[in-house]
Amino acid sequence: MDTPQFYTLKGYARGKGDVLTAAMEDYLEMICRLSGKGKDPVRIRALSRQLHVKPSSASKMVSNLREKGLIEAEKYGEIRLTPAGEALGEYLLYRHALLHRFFCYLNQTEDELEQVEKIEHFVEEKTVRSIQAFLDGLEGVQKE
Amino acid sequence: MDTPQFYTLKGYARGKGDVLTAAMEDYLEMICRLSGKGKDPVRIRALSRQLHVKPSSASKMVSNLREKGLIEAEKYGEIRLTPAGEALGEYLLYRHALLHRFFCYLNQTEDELEQVEKIEHFVEEKTVRSIQAFLDGLEGVQKE
Repeated sequence: MDTPQFYTLKGYARGKGDVLTAAMEDYLEMICRLSGKGKDPVRIRALSRQLHVKPSSASKMVSNLREKGLIEAEKYGEIRLTPAGEALGEYLLYRHALLHRFFCYLNQTEDELEQVEKIEHFVEEKTVRSIQAFLDGLEGVQKE
Repeated sequence: MDTPQFYTLKGYARGKGDVLTAAMEDYLEMICRLSGKGKDPVRIRALSRQLHVKPSSASKMVSNLREKGLIEAEKYGEIRLTPAGEALGEYLLYRHALLHRFFCYLNQTEDELEQVEKIEHFVEEKTVRSIQAFLDGLEGVQKE
């Protein structure tokens, strides 16, 4: 697993609109997941269903993300990520998967979803990089 | 560093009053720190000063912790932990120190306070044990 290359774009996205709240991150992560990493538009209704929230709550949060330059103007109830939104969303999906792998390794388990969902928002980028390097090191050891 | 033995008491404390909120954990951790691991009484005023909150906010939170059986009835503005409060407080201090050591190891740094302060509330006991075992393993390697 190579270290991903979207840190610069992500930094750009962050720089624009301050840091996102945990809820905003959850939304962006889900939009990115539903859109096939940003390629397809996502319907507000599908988004609210996946996150178990009311469509009105989803609409509100989508506005917040749009104000931060992460989502394009909505058309016919469909939303699309901006390039910055796509980059940040991909980073969030990557961070999620990496932390899940890491906690499964630590606990010798196969499902650490709940814990990762809570923790991921607070794990700094520097730590994400360190964990990636740590897991890469393990793979190196296994290959030897 | 041996694995601490207060899990049972901690389980007891948790069992009594559901899981604590992040804020409650911060308070209990600080009370335990200020009281020299539960031995001395702590003044509400000292507590509020350390946590940068108003004395009235500290009083309110202390009431919540008392309702959970973690703090004895207050006398003359002084609070004391119950045995369950002391056990849980010690666990929180231990978890904090362990996570700090772990993140410093991962990032090869000496100060990860801010990140640990945010993350610690969501790290499950099972993971705390795994991290302890992981760090013990490292020490074993260094000794060899």
